[in-house]
Amino acid sequence: MSFSLEELDRRVAVRASASPDESYTAKLIARGVEKCAQKLGEEAVEAAIAAVAGRKEELAAEAGDVLYHLLVLLRASDVPLAQVMAELESRTAQSGLAEKAGRPRS
Amino acid sequence: MSFSLEELDRRVAVRASASPDESYTAKLIARGVEKCAQKLGEEAVEAAIAAVAGRKEELAAEAGDVLYHLLVLLRASDVPLAQVMAELESRTAQSGLAEKAGRPRS
Amino acid sequence: MSFSLEELDRRVAVRASASPDESYTAKLIARGVEKCAQKLGEEAVEAAIAAVAGRKEELAAEAGDVLYHLLVLLRASDVPLAQVMAELESRTAQSGLAEKAGRPRS
Amino acid sequence: MSFSLEELDRRVAVRASASPDESYTAKLIARGVEKCAQKLGEEAVEAAIAAVAGRKEELAAEAGDVLYHLLVLLRASDVPLAQVMAELESRTAQSGLAEKAGRPRS
Repeated sequence: MSFSLEELDRRVAVRASASPDESYTAKLIARGVEKCAQKLGEEAVEAAIAAVAGRKEELAAEAGDVLYHLLVLLRASDVPLAQVMAELESRTAQSGLAEKAGRPRS
Repeated sequence: MSFSLEELDRRVAVRASASPDESYTAKLIARGVEKCAQKLGEEAVEAAIAAVAGRKEELAAEAGDVLYHLLVLLRASDVPLAQVMAELESRTAQSGLAEKAGRPRS
Repeated sequence: MSFSLEELDRRVAVRASASPDESYTAKLIARGVEKCAQKLGEEAVEAAIAAVAGRKEELAAEAGDVLYHLLVLLRASDVPLAQVMAELESRTAQSGLAEKAGRPRS
Repeated sequence: MSFSLEELDRRVAVRASASPDESYTAKLIARGVEKCAQKLGEEAVEAAIAAVAGRKEELAAEAGDVLYHLLVLLRASDVPLAQVMAELESRTAQSGLAEKAGRPRS
């Protein structure tokens, strides 16, 4: 059984309850939602650049940073990961054609 | 058992093998890594803004978009999700203090 | 005398006072600060990707989009361009060494 | 006569020719286009967040960072600011209605 996003979220939860002096995660959450949001944006930009530059190892590392900082932002915002996954499940349960029709992009 | 990122990745894989005329996912991948990277960046910005604006429902939806577009970008770049998760597992296995020391931020 | 950012800002001001049915600029501002902020983020990501991909023509176009959407965001936020330029003038008036010392990066 | 983007660009040019040990600008350019692109993305995200949070002083400062890092990225990519401004001039010379029609958004 491989490492899951839920297990990562549990580790984030443990870290979040530590002292900001002892944990980077706790420190980030203590700095507030805006700082956490900023970090997600930064890591997504870094992942995008690594992908465009064709550097796979770096993309794998940056993708991990995106996942980690997304979980931190959700926690700082009191949005449970389960809510995100439930929505993804129902959204992607559609057929391919329905998927396309159901995703009008602004 | 709740819906997992691995299950989402399997659905992305199925869609990716469909015709670009039938699937938004296949169409996105057909447009290339740069387009996929751009979408990840856009969705992360939208998630960040929703979080800062304090809109939880919207943040949950945008977080789902971030996860989906991250998986699409990994697939377009031939980077397996398992590689990302394995790195996250080893990285977060450290203690809180080690975590902090091991993440020097530039 | 070449086209200046101030002249672009005057054109943005004229457009902003038009009807949202007649002007993309007015429509964007009518949708609010968050929409304008989102557009700035998107265009910056596109400029970044064009630069990394080495496409100069596209970078020039995307850089123009960044400037335009930055001015729209400032207008939607009631922050005058003159305030931004005054701060840049005082900040960059320093010598190279002072510049370096005065820009501690988080 | 107020401080202009062209004058800022001249200061960036002077700094760019300094030693990376003496100038933040020179150091950034020495690190390459990708690092410059990453910085632009980061600053745009910070400007977007400051705007959504309604902090005008911070938005003015972050907007300045966006302008500065955009000029650095253009320089690192050998794209002259004049090319960007010429394109903006011709693009915004249209009437409001033409503007709207001429900007199909993807």
